[in-house]
Amino acid sequence: MSELGLTSINGISCLGKHIGLKKKKKDFTIIFSAKPLTAVAVFTTNAFKAAPILVSKKHLKKSKNCVKAIVANSGNANACTGLQGILDAEETCAIFANELKIKKEEVLVFSTGVIGTALPMDKIKQGLKKIKSQLGTTYVHEFNAAQAILTTDNKPKQVTVQQNGIKIACIAKGSGMINPNMATMLCFIATNAKLSVAELQKSLNLAANQSFNQLSVDGCQSTNDSVVLLSTQEKQIELENFQKLLTELCVKVSTKIAEDAEGAGKLMEVKVKNAKTQKQAALLAKAVVSSDLVKTAITGKTGLVGRILAALGSTFIKVNPAKVKLLINGQKIFSHNQFLKVDYFLFHKNMHKKCIQIEINLNQGKKESVALGCNLTKKYVEINTFYAPGVL
Amino acid sequence: MSELGLTSINGISCLGKHIGLKKKKKDFTIIFSAKPLTAVAVFTTNAFKAAPILVSKKHLKKSKNCVKAIVANSGNANACTGLQGILDAEETCAIFANELKIKKEEVLVFSTGVIGTALPMDKIKQGLKKIKSQLGTTYVHEFNAAQAILTTDNKPKQVTVQQNGIKIACIAKGSGMINPNMATMLCFIATNAKLSVAELQKSLNLAANQSFNQLSVDGCQSTNDSVVLLSTQEKQIELENFQKLLTELCVKVSTKIAEDAEGAGKLMEVKVKNAKTQKQAALLAKAVVSSDLVKTAITGKTGLVGRILAALGSTFIKVNPAKVKLLINGQKIFSHNQFLKVDYFLFHKNMHKKCIQIEINLNQGKKESVALGCNLTKKYVEINTFYAPGVL
Repeated sequence: MSELGLTSINGISCLGKHIGLKKKKKDFTIIFSAKPLTAVAVFTTNAFKAAPILVSKKHLKKSKNCVKAIVANSGNANACTGLQGILDAEETCAIFANELKIKKEEVLVFSTGVIGTALPMDKIKQGLKKIKSQLGTTYVHEFNAAQAILTTDNKPKQVTVQQNGIKIACIAKGSGMINPNMATMLCFIATNAKLSVAELQKSLNLAANQSFNQLSVDGCQSTNDSVVLLSTQEKQIELENFQKLLTELCVKVSTKIAEDAEGAGKLMEVKVKNAKTQKQAALLAKAVVSSDLVKTAITGKTGLVGRILAALGSTFIKVNPAKVKLLINGQKIFSHNQFLKVDYFLFHKNMHKKCIQIEINLNQGKKESVALGCNLTKKYVEINTFYAPGVL
Repeated sequence: MSELGLTSINGISCLGKHIGLKKKKKDFTIIFSAKPLTAVAVFTTNAFKAAPILVSKKHLKKSKNCVKAIVANSGNANACTGLQGILDAEETCAIFANELKIKKEEVLVFSTGVIGTALPMDKIKQGLKKIKSQLGTTYVHEFNAAQAILTTDNKPKQVTVQQNGIKIACIAKGSGMINPNMATMLCFIATNAKLSVAELQKSLNLAANQSFNQLSVDGCQSTNDSVVLLSTQEKQIELENFQKLLTELCVKVSTKIAEDAEGAGKLMEVKVKNAKTQKQAALLAKAVVSSDLVKTAITGKTGLVGRILAALGSTFIKVNPAKVKLLINGQKIFSHNQFLKVDYFLFHKNMHKKCIQIEINLNQGKKESVALGCNLTKKYVEINTFYAPGVL
């Protein structure tokens, strides 16, 4: 058993391996527990939900939020694949359930990758043969699992937070097609905290709203994105403390996703302060973090401020330019509807930092929100221009 | 007097010249009529409206929509420039009015370019000296005027439409930071149609909603964008016919802007058919045309369909995937929630066309809307990364 990560939680085993959906790279992940796990999830709100999401939703309901496994593949999204897609996702669960001698509805299934191509079921079937013996609880097993869900990510993403014996750990994938409501990527979280389904779901919703739903890589929402929270129900914890800990984990993993976004090299943190409502603060922060012109200005380290203001003014929310104050990496830049005289040397030094922190004070109320994002580069365009050669 | 363009309308003269706001390129445009012109306008809804917009709005009111000139500069947006910006815009109008012996409020003023830097008034003053003698009604005068409002545009944009002696002509600039509500760029339109202020305003609003407000280059809204419609009140026309003609002009100029967008080489036309409401059709068409992933797929000529569907499904509008039919350049691609078997050779041939026409049939109602956009390239990122060196 590892000291950190999913496999540091009693009874959870993992694997990640190559079954031939991607060239050479690992593309198949399992998270398993012989004892039942309480499971809740948030899914993309996209109308074109991928087949595995529809199947996982059904299984969560049928199993009454009591599951034993997550089966996930990368390289193929099994999205926009019609009835065949549903049958394939169901069959994947059934074969795995049969191998492990569990019920089909105790398996959740996820896919990420290219849209519109049928899942090659022969490869899935071959990959699932004698899978039980390949599961393990070492760091290597978990690292492989974290690797095998990646698409255009550069690094696997693993986060653990803990407090007084309570652990929350996750593996995640991000990169492109990342924009809220819900969920912005795949993230599989496990905890030993003893909480009800309702408490877990509420905590996950709240944490997601303050992290994944405030994260934008390219403003594009995926058909497949999902966050799952599994619990072994071992240790008592105050709900409030769990909430804090879970939010901390979700913010950490969101930051990792923004840092490792397609073609990006810089993290952008936009805090909107003193808004009338939290919702308005969140929406305005998102508008700034999502602007292609703000994002290219961060790459170019110049021409940033006007673009931030233009983005801030472009929503349907009323903003009073005369009240707005703007700071970039702590430096006061704009106030009373005009640019301030600033130390240019310091400004340009700040623009070379890895993380650009933009603080916008609306002076309209008392609520605030933070959005996370990244810069836009030619590399992003290149990756997404040539991502899926030969695909419709 | 020209046969086409603004200067083909009785009494309208133009000039475009270099006054030193940009390096070498023309940067100062005048449109003038000694006889009063009825004027209406639509402006950006951005909260950070540039100073010249605030001044032009005031002048329209004060002159009771009766003006004689448009003065516009490129190279500097006079936006986020505080009180000084307002004073500078007012002074520009006052100097010009003095040169031409007209009233200050008969002058509308516009700026486009970099945000946050004060207008160099010495150059403006120098440029306005003896300006009357430089005005003219030849094609060259108008071409110069069209050139002098450009920023990162490659080509000047001039459109004329006419019917039974009624003329509507315009010059426009577009390129980046283009997204609706209102107005997406600078466009100065003149007509000889005899119509009331209310009729002209209503016609312009309607035409803008079907053209400029359905155009997206990068989803970023500008602080300066404005469309002005001037009338010499010469010829009677049925309002309905004028409306059609004006919409035709606005769609034509929107298409020119999309074609010449920063770094783009391909035009994208997205038609959403059979929606419940026109508003829903418009919003969905805009969602598709604005998706960075759809835009890069058009550059790459591959992986387009899944991204179109993901964008279509990502709004708050309910879309039924089982009812959606998708055609690309006339080829049926998607229906009944799955990709169809298509002639790949024909698909890839279509993807090489200059204009990619995406038709989405929702089968939910009877309303439709078209949105215009372009592809996203590394060149766009390059232009906007290095657009304003040395500016905050």
